[in-house]
Amino acid sequence: MSDIDDWRALARRELGDRDPAALESRTPEGITTRPVYGPADLDGLPHPGGWPGLPPFTRGPRATMYAGRPWTIRQYAGFSTAGESNAFYRQALAAGQQGVSVAFDLATHRGYDSDHPRVEGDVGKAGVAIDSVEDMKTLFDGIPLDRVSVSMTMNGAVIPVLAAFIVAGEEQGVARAALSGTIQNDILKEFMVRNTYIFPPEPSMRIVADIIDFTAREMPKFNSVSISGYHMHEAGATLVQELAFTLADGREYVQAALARGMNVDDFAGRLSFFFAIGQDFFMEAAKLRAARFLWHRIMAGFGAKDPRSLMLRTHCQTSGVSLQAQDPWNNIVRTAYEALAAVLGGTQSLHTNSFDEALALPTEFSARIARNTQLILQHETGVTRVADPLAGSYYVESLTGALIEEAQALIDEVEALGGMTRAVISGMPKLRIEEAAARRQAAIDRGETVIVGVTRFRPDRDDPVDLREIDNAAVRRAQVERLATLRRQRDGAACAATLAALADGARLGQGNLLELAVAAARARATVGEITQAMEDAFGRHSAEVRTLVGVYGAEWGDDPEFAALRAEVAAFAAAEGRPPRLLVAKMGQDGHDRGARVIATAFTDMGFAVDSEPLFQMPDEVAAAAIAQGADVIGVSTLAAGHKTLAPQLIAALKARGAGNILVVCGGVIPEQDHDFLRRAGVRAIFGPGTNIPEAAREVLRLIRGERGN
Amino acid sequence: MSDIDDWRALARRELGDRDPAALESRTPEGITTRPVYGPADLDGLPHPGGWPGLPPFTRGPRATMYAGRPWTIRQYAGFSTAGESNAFYRQALAAGQQGVSVAFDLATHRGYDSDHPRVEGDVGKAGVAIDSVEDMKTLFDGIPLDRVSVSMTMNGAVIPVLAAFIVAGEEQGVARAALSGTIQNDILKEFMVRNTYIFPPEPSMRIVADIIDFTAREMPKFNSVSISGYHMHEAGATLVQELAFTLADGREYVQAALARGMNVDDFAGRLSFFFAIGQDFFMEAAKLRAARFLWHRIMAGFGAKDPRSLMLRTHCQTSGVSLQAQDPWNNIVRTAYEALAAVLGGTQSLHTNSFDEALALPTEFSARIARNTQLILQHETGVTRVADPLAGSYYVESLTGALIEEAQALIDEVEALGGMTRAVISGMPKLRIEEAAARRQAAIDRGETVIVGVTRFRPDRDDPVDLREIDNAAVRRAQVERLATLRRQRDGAACAATLAALADGARLGQGNLLELAVAAARARATVGEITQAMEDAFGRHSAEVRTLVGVYGAEWGDDPEFAALRAEVAAFAAAEGRPPRLLVAKMGQDGHDRGARVIATAFTDMGFAVDSEPLFQMPDEVAAAAIAQGADVIGVSTLAAGHKTLAPQLIAALKARGAGNILVVCGGVIPEQDHDFLRRAGVRAIFGPGTNIPEAAREVLRLIRGERGN
Repeated sequence: MSDIDDWRALARRELGDRDPAALESRTPEGITTRPVYGPADLDGLPHPGGWPGLPPFTRGPRATMYAGRPWTIRQYAGFSTAGESNAFYRQALAAGQQGVSVAFDLATHRGYDSDHPRVEGDVGKAGVAIDSVEDMKTLFDGIPLDRVSVSMTMNGAVIPVLAAFIVAGEEQGVARAALSGTIQNDILKEFMVRNTYIFPPEPSMRIVADIIDFTAREMPKFNSVSISGYHMHEAGATLVQELAFTLADGREYVQAALARGMNVDDFAGRLSFFFAIGQDFFMEAAKLRAARFLWHRIMAGFGAKDPRSLMLRTHCQTSGVSLQAQDPWNNIVRTAYEALAAVLGGTQSLHTNSFDEALALPTEFSARIARNTQLILQHETGVTRVADPLAGSYYVESLTGALIEEAQALIDEVEALGGMTRAVISGMPKLRIEEAAARRQAAIDRGETVIVGVTRFRPDRDDPVDLREIDNAAVRRAQVERLATLRRQRDGAACAATLAALADGARLGQGNLLELAVAAARARATVGEITQAMEDAFGRHSAEVRTLVGVYGAEWGDDPEFAALRAEVAAFAAAEGRPPRLLVAKMGQDGHDRGARVIATAFTDMGFAVDSEPLFQMPDEVAAAAIAQGADVIGVSTLAAGHKTLAPQLIAALKARGAGNILVVCGGVIPEQDHDFLRRAGVRAIFGPGTNIPEAAREVLRLIRGERGN
Repeated sequence: MSDIDDWRALARRELGDRDPAALESRTPEGITTRPVYGPADLDGLPHPGGWPGLPPFTRGPRATMYAGRPWTIRQYAGFSTAGESNAFYRQALAAGQQGVSVAFDLATHRGYDSDHPRVEGDVGKAGVAIDSVEDMKTLFDGIPLDRVSVSMTMNGAVIPVLAAFIVAGEEQGVARAALSGTIQNDILKEFMVRNTYIFPPEPSMRIVADIIDFTAREMPKFNSVSISGYHMHEAGATLVQELAFTLADGREYVQAALARGMNVDDFAGRLSFFFAIGQDFFMEAAKLRAARFLWHRIMAGFGAKDPRSLMLRTHCQTSGVSLQAQDPWNNIVRTAYEALAAVLGGTQSLHTNSFDEALALPTEFSARIARNTQLILQHETGVTRVADPLAGSYYVESLTGALIEEAQALIDEVEALGGMTRAVISGMPKLRIEEAAARRQAAIDRGETVIVGVTRFRPDRDDPVDLREIDNAAVRRAQVERLATLRRQRDGAACAATLAALADGARLGQGNLLELAVAAARARATVGEITQAMEDAFGRHSAEVRTLVGVYGAEWGDDPEFAALRAEVAAFAAAEGRPPRLLVAKMGQDGHDRGARVIATAFTDMGFAVDSEPLFQMPDEVAAAAIAQGADVIGVSTLAAGHKTLAPQLIAALKARGAGNILVVCGGVIPEQDHDFLRRAGVRAIFGPGTNIPEAAREVLRLIRGERGN
């Protein structure tokens, strides 16, 4: 038998006498992979091998895993109206899907009824508009809630939405104890990355604990929190960050419930997880294995005894940020690999993205391919036959061990700050994730990270994709009408009494907020009204926006082209007496700000003066700020399709204030078919996904120069 | 630490007290997989671990594998004319492809010039028509043959085609010693499964040895044989059959060269392999590992010393037979998983099928997605970082060991028959593969094997696919014209002299046939003429067709529906005094007969009287046979798109012979847009891929009854 020295000598020969260490890779996680692994790599790993279903669950939460029953195919979807979404769910269930997962629109997420003036551009975008229990009943019409499990991605307006769900169950004749499913209810990550919070951190943590408490008592089949790393991944987190911050979030929720005097084994079995699965195939599979080991360690530390409290069960979703708008058919392939990694990691349920989701909400066609990806895995590839098939692999076990160690170190850092609520308030996790995102963007812009069809291998021509178009205004009109009917038909005094009781409970710290909200929902109080009752007591949270400096620029080192661009910006500043000034703005209720944050960082590092507006602004507020700051250009970042309403309003507001000379450019997910409309409305440049940022900066500089006539 | 007994106890609880052995699977290979594997499964395996690049090469032929250099993306393609194919290759090379792989049309495969009357329906179908060195020069115009490696899938007409390639190189200014690439030249598997042979086995083996000899002396960078399991897989072989028969073929070629007095290390390094990668994900990856181990064992047995003689290097192609005509977008997903399995198995180059290949030749669009599948694997998934990443996995190492043992047993069986040439003549491998194919078909027809979008989860509607249409007649006209020009312009006497020398060499067993053919090709002798010169000496091989009985029916056991169908056929036989009589026919030069063989077996087992015509018949020959046998119906099996020419000719021939009452039905790969044309031409039923055979039999019976007026 040969040994590693023979290998090293041969590898050196193959490399023309270079050291094989040249083939080592350093991943964004800071883990170094070597070109070959062998049995010695199994020595000294932090995790013992063990068996699926048995502690520490590294190999999976169930003994029989998919050989006994495959993972649940659970596709996340929501389309504008409850009726349309209902039709989609029923069709998907008939076509082999095994559960429902609801995407809500942004107005609902942020606790606004559809008739609120702040959400004109948001109603029915990126998900379904739910204003009341009436909408919720339509959403699940003909779907037996005692048999189909329902996952709801809701964090901000979690109290009114869960209350409406419980009442919809009641009125379908299903007792709350029979309802199965999951509510996301993971508010900490919202403060870090996704920003669909409503109230400040402390009252938000009270709500989480109220829901854990309520479901532990009343809804034994319902997962009370879905502790989510997904959105961290989407915001650009490394896998170690996703692991560590998610598990630390989970730890914090457990502590909040324990602080109520609850017994750990009474609720911990109903905490579930939600991870993203990105493109680094083996690393992602190893991530789920590491997550299970670490969660077992954490829960054992809390003295949990019930195996269900000690085991991490998770839903996964393939990575949205890996989807590309260019040559989108490639996304079918990306999603297929991500799905397999999730399965090899041992997920309990899975959402596969549709290939057109970088462009629009999925069509029936694209949703079918996404669902079929999982059906093919389950029925055709044989991967369900064996639990944890990668176990023993020198490489995968090494990755699992490295992820455990790196994530534990970061969890320890969080603990040193006093736990996750404190860490979130300090801003540490958010900045770390933004740092990773800026590094990744720089690697893409520099051509080091290749994206097929985008940074290289671009197609000669575009092949058309049929996209789903949503008439936002029509959805809003219909919702406003339904709300008016509801308000007309309900017993106003009874409804007001339930809302007053809820407001008292919030203000005085008495009672269970979910319990109080169920009464209000039953009395036909709306999502917006229930939220407002609590907001009166808690206030609405507004986050400070900080811009990371230096990380993006540092990645470029002394690259001559980047230096030339900085010199160009500096020359502008010298000539004009001040640098070009960019205001980065997100409008409406969309809180996904990875793009906005990366742009702010990158433009700052290129020499622009950059201001960032707080999230959730109205167009007129942005116009006023731009004038006050003396902006040359406003960069509107958009992901959730509100741009057709909001960008024209912004341009009109600028003109109305006599500042038509301030340029407006848009960046983000903007389908090709919207470009003409936006340009006609006065948008001067549109930067789609995959934009090279230095190229965009050159274009912006050119536009500013043009506007000034030089 | 828990042990396997704890696992077993827990698994039993999860299964409601069933024995976990109920979760064991028996694969078509006869390998039993268990729901969990652990360290003890590594004990007693036949293969030691070792390192990539070092004997016995289980872990890969190179030390650095893809960390040093990724596999070669080599897409197999050929489109009708040399000019069109050339344009496609140039575009693909520019778009990231790393080598050229030529698909020839069926006429070329079988050594017929395009103006031969037997190939009217075959010219330009399923690949490029090459009649002479002039076509070959057009094919590689602007493609530098000293830099781009060329793979040619050619077995029957291997002498004239390789000769034309060598001369095309010469006339491009590239010496034969500088040509790199591969010629398939694997004739044994043609007799087993693919049927594009020309001469009988013994002279065919002389040709193989002549090419090994010639390339060893003159073309050091050229692989002389690509020992191919691919077509066995496509014909329905299990992985063990594919492994064993392919390695046994390789063994036979080595022996043929040794019998010439060659030294094993002078040629063995230029033998390469070609495997299919099907859907059984881990089994396929393990297959390549097992193949390398077994080949090392075989070559060590021949006393090979050079590591390159001992290591198996292989090209792989994703499985064509796994592609479905229904909901063809699913094929993108299937191909993606197969490609990953090939890569995890350690292939040296890879072809990924286009998603529309179950319907037609690929379009630029579908070819791009197929190529991008590999580019995404190389650039985005991180799987290239580490050599043999599955090594050490309890499951994968167990599969590798099981495949080694099962394949060795079958190789031993072949050896007991006296080696592969003898085994092929005995028909054993062909019948074994047909047995496996019949079993698989029965499992599909019975609903046990699920095909997403075909046997289950069918879409509500068809989404249109743009297919490539080929004007077969126009291609043939152009080729005929080019041939006429060639014959007019060449020095006829000089050409005739080279052909006479070749015929002598063939007849007398003197000289190297490739060397003689190079002289003829240089003198502008055509592919058909060079073939004819050898055919005069060797004759043309015609294979006996045997039908397997009982295997398909046995799989149905006492299924009541199958029994009812048999009863219905028996009732027909009782009423008519004889069973319904089916003639299974393939026409033209397409030798892919898996479908035809399965149909013959299945219909026999259902009670039909079935006759099978020899391959390569003309329509009039089939009509005559049908009348002679008293057929009720002719089932035309078609894969290579000749049906639009041949089926109408068959119907006309039947009518001309006064037998218009004999029904004609078609089965195989027939695009939707051809259906109307065929029906108007008189084809009574069309059975596409994914047809349930008992349903087809019922329909055929109904048609026969209708024809008889009862």
